[in-house]
Amino acid sequence: MTVGILSVGTEVTRGEIVDTNSAFLAAALTDAGFDVGGGSAVADDVEKIASTLKRMAAEHEVIVVTGGLGPTTDDLTARAAALAAGVKQTRDESALLAIRRRVEARGRTLTLHHEKQADLPEGSEQLSNSEGTAPGFALRIGEATAYFMPGVPREMKRMFQDQVLPRIGPSASRKTHVVRLRTFGMPESIAAELLSDIEARFPGVTVGYRLHVPELDIKISARADSYDAARTLATECAALTSKVLGDVVYGEGDDDLPLITSRSLRSRGLRLALAESCTGGLIAQMLTSYAGASDFLIGGAVVYANSAKTRLLSVAEDTLRGHGAVSAEVAAEMAQGVRRVCEVDVGLSVTGIAGPGGGSTHKPVGLVYWAVAHAGGVVVRERVFQGDRHDIQHQAAYSALDLLRRVVSGLSEQSEPPPSQRPPSR
Amino acid sequence: MTVGILSVGTEVTRGEIVDTNSAFLAAALTDAGFDVGGGSAVADDVEKIASTLKRMAAEHEVIVVTGGLGPTTDDLTARAAALAAGVKQTRDESALLAIRRRVEARGRTLTLHHEKQADLPEGSEQLSNSEGTAPGFALRIGEATAYFMPGVPREMKRMFQDQVLPRIGPSASRKTHVVRLRTFGMPESIAAELLSDIEARFPGVTVGYRLHVPELDIKISARADSYDAARTLATECAALTSKVLGDVVYGEGDDDLPLITSRSLRSRGLRLALAESCTGGLIAQMLTSYAGASDFLIGGAVVYANSAKTRLLSVAEDTLRGHGAVSAEVAAEMAQGVRRVCEVDVGLSVTGIAGPGGGSTHKPVGLVYWAVAHAGGVVVRERVFQGDRHDIQHQAAYSALDLLRRVVSGLSEQSEPPPSQRPPSR
Repeated sequence: MTVGILSVGTEVTRGEIVDTNSAFLAAALTDAGFDVGGGSAVADDVEKIASTLKRMAAEHEVIVVTGGLGPTTDDLTARAAALAAGVKQTRDESALLAIRRRVEARGRTLTLHHEKQADLPEGSEQLSNSEGTAPGFALRIGEATAYFMPGVPREMKRMFQDQVLPRIGPSASRKTHVVRLRTFGMPESIAAELLSDIEARFPGVTVGYRLHVPELDIKISARADSYDAARTLATECAALTSKVLGDVVYGEGDDDLPLITSRSLRSRGLRLALAESCTGGLIAQMLTSYAGASDFLIGGAVVYANSAKTRLLSVAEDTLRGHGAVSAEVAAEMAQGVRRVCEVDVGLSVTGIAGPGGGSTHKPVGLVYWAVAHAGGVVVRERVFQGDRHDIQHQAAYSALDLLRRVVSGLSEQSEPPPSQRPPSR
Repeated sequence: MTVGILSVGTEVTRGEIVDTNSAFLAAALTDAGFDVGGGSAVADDVEKIASTLKRMAAEHEVIVVTGGLGPTTDDLTARAAALAAGVKQTRDESALLAIRRRVEARGRTLTLHHEKQADLPEGSEQLSNSEGTAPGFALRIGEATAYFMPGVPREMKRMFQDQVLPRIGPSASRKTHVVRLRTFGMPESIAAELLSDIEARFPGVTVGYRLHVPELDIKISARADSYDAARTLATECAALTSKVLGDVVYGEGDDDLPLITSRSLRSRGLRLALAESCTGGLIAQMLTSYAGASDFLIGGAVVYANSAKTRLLSVAEDTLRGHGAVSAEVAAEMAQGVRRVCEVDVGLSVTGIAGPGGGSTHKPVGLVYWAVAHAGGVVVRERVFQGDRHDIQHQAAYSALDLLRRVVSGLSEQSEPPPSQRPPSR
């Protein structure tokens, strides 16, 4: 059984928004063992939506659709669904009641725009929306069942988990297992070279590479006669792959480098403070996007101007004058400064030139220094990154987190005495 | 003439990555006046890629394809393209030479994996890749021309701008114009109600709404007999729409609230410092993602723990004890503290409970205070936001930036004397 994903909205086909809904659904369906056959996006046009639904109904057993259920004039999905199924739209009184309750609970008055959301295709089953006003619905189109959900991500995710996934049911014949290894610091072509014979050694396994700057994921997909056999096969292949690639592999599955680094600090009881210049708060934002960051992150400083480096972190004016703000010396003083000011175990700093302006012959755009200061000393690294401002900022942030991960795991090897009493380990 | 967009890669159909390439291409093609008829995503499967290419070639005059041109075993797009066009793959010597040069310039050795990237479909035209090793190519499939580009966003964007767009040529019959108004702070249903008669007043105009938490965009699409007439129509309708909605409209086009707020500070010569608690660096990251942030942003503090609020910003321990870290009083002291420590014109602070933990009956998850401190005093706002951690952090960051925008434009009305000598304006 394959599932097709359809995203409705001119904002998607015109590229005004990035279609994160389809990515969420594809991942959730894949995790649940379904074979996602493909995805499509279509503009707010009744005829186009209807013809796409009919084509997808011929290709897939299940279709999940997002978008176009809202109150405004460009929300046309219910009408298109009715057209594709060859039925009329009728006012659903229970849907109208739910909409009225929700609108009034917010202290607003029901309008014709809200009421239109209760006009569902005949024969459809209503899917209640616990997060918003627009109800979803399930409808038979040809031989397929299509599930229609709102485009607002929060509403869609809740409806999918609570209402759609239970109706689709578990995948009967799941015989594949995927392990996703997360790596940082190795080019794709070198990884591919090192792993060139891995598929031959594990029949039934496909190895895939996903480069999303600055990370490279390695997907190990195993297919076997049973799910258990597939899982064993994927696990064994992943273990060998990890061994071949070494410590550029930082984790497995969905957990990214900020989360893995966070866990590493938390489990060792180490407190962190950040001093960011060219990354401008990106590392802090990555770490605090996860709940529980307050367990280990005390705070930090975004020190964009030299005056902030001096005032917030006591970086010496002599160092700034003598070596420049983008230098190994300033990176070290920033890390040591934030460690001292915030009274924490570990200070992490980044200073560099994110561009596009500000570069020179000696200090080109992309030049970045980062440092980790701990009780045992300070470690500084340097690199010239390629790419645009976004790429440089992200490569710098990841490089700094990766150094932190490595230093922290090194610190843990000498787990007693506690960090503040440790001898220099540099 | 319509253009179809195809994204190749199991990482897309399985939802392991969000397909930002298709969004970029859709926006760039729409901006260039093309009608993007729809988008599709397909897994790394030769047969499926080929059949999707054939279907799209029957629907569109032009197809732009990303992904699957890399060096690894799951990169199958060139093979599928050859299959769809009914031609063989042959080694392209000029492509091989370009790949060799690029690999060797990086100090690496050419491998079989790299060489495979030079196997292009017969009759295709090579598109050089100035940012990476994998060449792209243009190929006739049925009645359509398909342009194949790598999936790495930086390589794809450059190839699209330099090689693909000039080959597609300008859209001959562009008779539409779109104005996108950016708003913050008004629910979609209220905006729709206020604008319910706008389409009737401007025949040829379609009004669309895009809610991307926490913003609401209003798209005004005009179609007329000529491009100039369409532009005039859209501009007039946008002007009335702005008047109806008032100052929740903060800008137009691609420029987001962080950029608009940045411009507002820069043009007035005001220097800003940030004090972020529950937003954890998000505001700093938003502002510094744009080049030139150093013109106005001196720096800031991410003060997650109470100790950081005290040490970095001199928030009084009595205030923290008496009112709690999440309070109007602490928000005010944070904004004033960072303004004083960094010696800037304006201090902006946020403190709140992003969740999912940490809430109580009196201070629920989602409760956020934000404040702007300037020479004339301090303005504090309070709100309980709905949604998950990500939503709460983003609503808080946008609310703080919006207050900053409003205060700054108010400050400008009394443009002399300079901020530091202004009388209290609260």
